[in-house]
Amino acid sequence: MNPFYILRLSAIIQVVVSAFMIIPAGIAASAGEMLEFYSFLGTILLVWIFASVYILVTRRAPNRVLSSRDGFFFVTSSWILAAGFGAIPMWISGTIPSYTDAYFEIMSGFTTTGASILTDIEALPRSILFWRSLTHWLGGMGIVVLVVALIPLLGAGGTKLVGAESPGPSVDKFTPKIRNNALILWLIYLGLSVIEIILLMLGGMDLFDASTHTFGTMATGGFSPKAASVGHYNSAYIDAIITIFMVLAGCNFALYYKAMSGKLRDVFRDGEFRAYLGIFFIVAILISINLMLKGDGYDTPGRAFRYASFQTATIITTTGYATCDFELWPNFSKVLLFFLMFIGGCSGSTGGGIKVIRIVTVAKLALNNIKYMLHPRGVFSLKVGNTQIRKEVVYTIAGFFGLYIFTILFSTIVVSTCGTDIETSLTTALVTVGNIGPGFGKIGPTENYFFFPGYIKWFLSLAMMAGRLELFTVFALLTPQFWRK
Amino acid sequence: MNPFYILRLSAIIQVVVSAFMIIPAGIAASAGEMLEFYSFLGTILLVWIFASVYILVTRRAPNRVLSSRDGFFFVTSSWILAAGFGAIPMWISGTIPSYTDAYFEIMSGFTTTGASILTDIEALPRSILFWRSLTHWLGGMGIVVLVVALIPLLGAGGTKLVGAESPGPSVDKFTPKIRNNALILWLIYLGLSVIEIILLMLGGMDLFDASTHTFGTMATGGFSPKAASVGHYNSAYIDAIITIFMVLAGCNFALYYKAMSGKLRDVFRDGEFRAYLGIFFIVAILISINLMLKGDGYDTPGRAFRYASFQTATIITTTGYATCDFELWPNFSKVLLFFLMFIGGCSGSTGGGIKVIRIVTVAKLALNNIKYMLHPRGVFSLKVGNTQIRKEVVYTIAGFFGLYIFTILFSTIVVSTCGTDIETSLTTALVTVGNIGPGFGKIGPTENYFFFPGYIKWFLSLAMMAGRLELFTVFALLTPQFWRK
Repeated sequence: MNPFYILRLSAIIQVVVSAFMIIPAGIAASAGEMLEFYSFLGTILLVWIFASVYILVTRRAPNRVLSSRDGFFFVTSSWILAAGFGAIPMWISGTIPSYTDAYFEIMSGFTTTGASILTDIEALPRSILFWRSLTHWLGGMGIVVLVVALIPLLGAGGTKLVGAESPGPSVDKFTPKIRNNALILWLIYLGLSVIEIILLMLGGMDLFDASTHTFGTMATGGFSPKAASVGHYNSAYIDAIITIFMVLAGCNFALYYKAMSGKLRDVFRDGEFRAYLGIFFIVAILISINLMLKGDGYDTPGRAFRYASFQTATIITTTGYATCDFELWPNFSKVLLFFLMFIGGCSGSTGGGIKVIRIVTVAKLALNNIKYMLHPRGVFSLKVGNTQIRKEVVYTIAGFFGLYIFTILFSTIVVSTCGTDIETSLTTALVTVGNIGPGFGKIGPTENYFFFPGYIKWFLSLAMMAGRLELFTVFALLTPQFWRK
Repeated sequence: MNPFYILRLSAIIQVVVSAFMIIPAGIAASAGEMLEFYSFLGTILLVWIFASVYILVTRRAPNRVLSSRDGFFFVTSSWILAAGFGAIPMWISGTIPSYTDAYFEIMSGFTTTGASILTDIEALPRSILFWRSLTHWLGGMGIVVLVVALIPLLGAGGTKLVGAESPGPSVDKFTPKIRNNALILWLIYLGLSVIEIILLMLGGMDLFDASTHTFGTMATGGFSPKAASVGHYNSAYIDAIITIFMVLAGCNFALYYKAMSGKLRDVFRDGEFRAYLGIFFIVAILISINLMLKGDGYDTPGRAFRYASFQTATIITTTGYATCDFELWPNFSKVLLFFLMFIGGCSGSTGGGIKVIRIVTVAKLALNNIKYMLHPRGVFSLKVGNTQIRKEVVYTIAGFFGLYIFTILFSTIVVSTCGTDIETSLTTALVTVGNIGPGFGKIGPTENYFFFPGYIKWFLSLAMMAGRLELFTVFALLTPQFWRK
């Protein structure tokens, strides 16, 4: 591995990502937020100068085919740097006076977690709010995937590098060329985003609100420029649109490509897709019934289902928007949401968490063991829907599942060192590693992460990134084997 | 499978187990508890008549070599019936007026959970308290293993049947004969129990207190005839003895056989044993430091370590005794205990939980995946200590781990239907499936399970049994494949 060469690639990622700051800079200029305008412009210049100098200095580093090890280092360093530079405008403009807080907020943005340290969101400059939401949208489909779609950067080794960033165990290849795949994914993502913006504007939102909320929805992020989140609009239409698009964002994007290629039957036969929709509807209906039985303003089936389906979608897709304070819900509904925190969206979606395909695979592995105990001479076979899952993939999935549970438990212990109770510590771990956002206890939907001490914020920033990059990519860098020659 | 023949074997188990009621019947007679005396005697008669009639009626059922499927049915039915009959004396004597409560209490006894519905323990007749603790001791090493040790019941297929009851993925075979293995295990268990009784009596306990507490320790059960549990004695000596014997009971009993055969070096090379002791000491020391820093009566290192090591041992070995109310401890210590609830004792011990060997294997599987991603052409190899774990075993362990997590989450949802909060629902699931006993929230160490509605008590009884028999045995009976010809 040659870190100098790989950091040169990371530098190119930073140049592209920082170029997107031109949009909030424009917003700042037109809104008369001059301090923010100069902060964005200054950061862009800083990144470009840094990147140019670095690329120039390391121009002699050998250019070679990249291994998976290079991929881990490339993706992880790109994300650490992107949050590092992305936090600068908020920090130097004074919007968020502490760099720790700004880093946490922007890492939460890029990783589409949506956990916020902000206490008075609506007092913030519009340009800053826009940038915060835009990081969701960039991180949702992946900044490396984005750059690969735009620039023929990687060549032959590209698949491995994009694989280190892509969510889920199996990214379907639509076409043999990695760049085409990246482009198709980003075009679908862009298309769905444009449709959602239009539909939200039809519901009465202005372009600013519609786009920021769309970024949060399509990326399953959860940042809202409103203190009351989506609940601010108190509109059944807007709730419905955002619920539907959250569910869409939690689906494997490869399915949209299949659907557009006319293979609609394949979509409905997809085992993960069916399990995902099944879990969503069962939980949403159970919560609706529970809410109706308890009353408290949820007395009609329509109203109960509206709030139940929104909150179910927001947790299973790991978005984190809210239309009500689910901390006040009956315990059964709260436990169902807690259970969803272990699942997450589909592989190849923008959602976080363990992912439905892995949950289904581990469940089938357990069932397989029972079968095998009954018929010891049976042949191993594990199917999800119509797809045969190879033994090696089952291994990797089981290892991931175990690593995920250990990461949650370890993070719970680390968080509790600052004195938070079991419920808060555990759900903080679940919602940061799973990129969800709000949890229970002191990080409930009406609370924020401001109260955590600095070392917890840095730890959680790392946890969010590890979760977004699906653990292996980041944890590989922590093994001694990685750094051995 | 022929259920009639298998139930005949289960009937023999009931005859042996009920014979142990002669001891509490004797205690009842000498303490003048005549109602209890007749209740025990009546139950023994009832079981013996039932069993004799059943065996007579089904004497024509074919006698054949047993399959693993038969083993699952045999072990599960034996346990359901043992708790069913074991609950009768408490119920007909009026000590526990509800049969649901009595069943829960005795299933909690046999499974060595130690969760109790009793609100005023010390008001109970001594004979009932003794029986309650004795069920721990019988269930700890296993009632089927016990009967196999006493009677040449099973012949060739015996290993499979005992395997369905034994804790942990790999029961070492000391000798090729299953009956010898069962006998050796029970003799070691008996020997350690006698030593603990003597040591506790040297600390000032009478024979009754010393034996009931020994049953709870060696079986990692946790029932105490005192309302304040072991804290009642307020003795550093007794705390130390019980801590040490809890830790001993959480070790693989095969290691004692090895140690006695002079293979002491093998014992200390055992990967699971080292991991178990490592986790125990690290957590005990971390909690000691946390308690000392917080003060509150734990200001000397000795005092802090005394309480920290006792509570650490009680949770990791899944015993459930208490010498203080750890609900009042700082959150970091509570989260560490919560983390231990996921681990449990060693395989082949009387402890419950996931078991250390499985935790270590899943952790290594995760690490292996990272290695494999770095070196895709590496050869698969997974070692715990010096022992190579075969690929098929790793599969079974990963499946078990997944099933365990799902069982916990599913049980959490079921418990929450009665309105308990996330912390109570989750720890109730953890401590019943893991056979621990006390948890956090409404089932903390100073609380009890009385408040749960009847359907939750039946569900938890099943959950305790499923946990004690390591899930697969019981869950196999719930699959359609099991009942297919």
